[in-house]
Amino acid sequence: MGPGRADLLEGIRETGSIAAAGRRMDMSYKRAWTLVEELNATFDQPLVEVSRGGRAHGGARLSERGSEVLERYRRMQAASDMAIAADLDALAKNVATAASTDMSERK
Amino acid sequence: MGPGRADLLEGIRETGSIAAAGRRMDMSYKRAWTLVEELNATFDQPLVEVSRGGRAHGGARLSERGSEVLERYRRMQAASDMAIAADLDALAKNVATAASTDMSERK
Repeated sequence: MGPGRADLLEGIRETGSIAAAGRRMDMSYKRAWTLVEELNATFDQPLVEVSRGGRAHGGARLSERGSEVLERYRRMQAASDMAIAADLDALAKNVATAASTDMSERK
Repeated sequence: MGPGRADLLEGIRETGSIAAAGRRMDMSYKRAWTLVEELNATFDQPLVEVSRGGRAHGGARLSERGSEVLERYRRMQAASDMAIAADLDALAKNVATAASTDMSERK
């Protein structure tokens, strides 16, 4: 799980389509499907349910587990952001040119 | 700033050498130097000070700002880990085979 996968799940929830969710992120259809298959295999229950004709034509939606995992992930992002906010501000004050550096990078 | 750069700074603090710090991380001398130069340029004051003959021969150590930034970064990592610990445990319980999946991945 990570930011990209969370965004993909959110896109599926909002568009009802794996293809459309992938397009929104400039992700190929194949790549979006691969990620969904990986996510579904990773968890004890599928996160994404495919309907109406399956892979070729179909709509898709988040399962109950999918919604739960996405919401938990978002909560974790928010909690983490909040936990480091004060230090991040302090660190940003030591940056030579704040505009040119993304201190939120975690690579 | 990120985990790799923080580890490099820590290595420099512990070994007193950019080359040795890089080696510990299987990083080329050139790569380690490039990262140090980037870090020094990013902040309002250099994080790493080079001594005794400079780039070719020299030792290196963290400046006051370097120690400060490294400690702040470690504190942020710890605060973030703590903030998500309970959710991470809950999420891990939904993973099909916990052993084969690293839920701490943030890519």
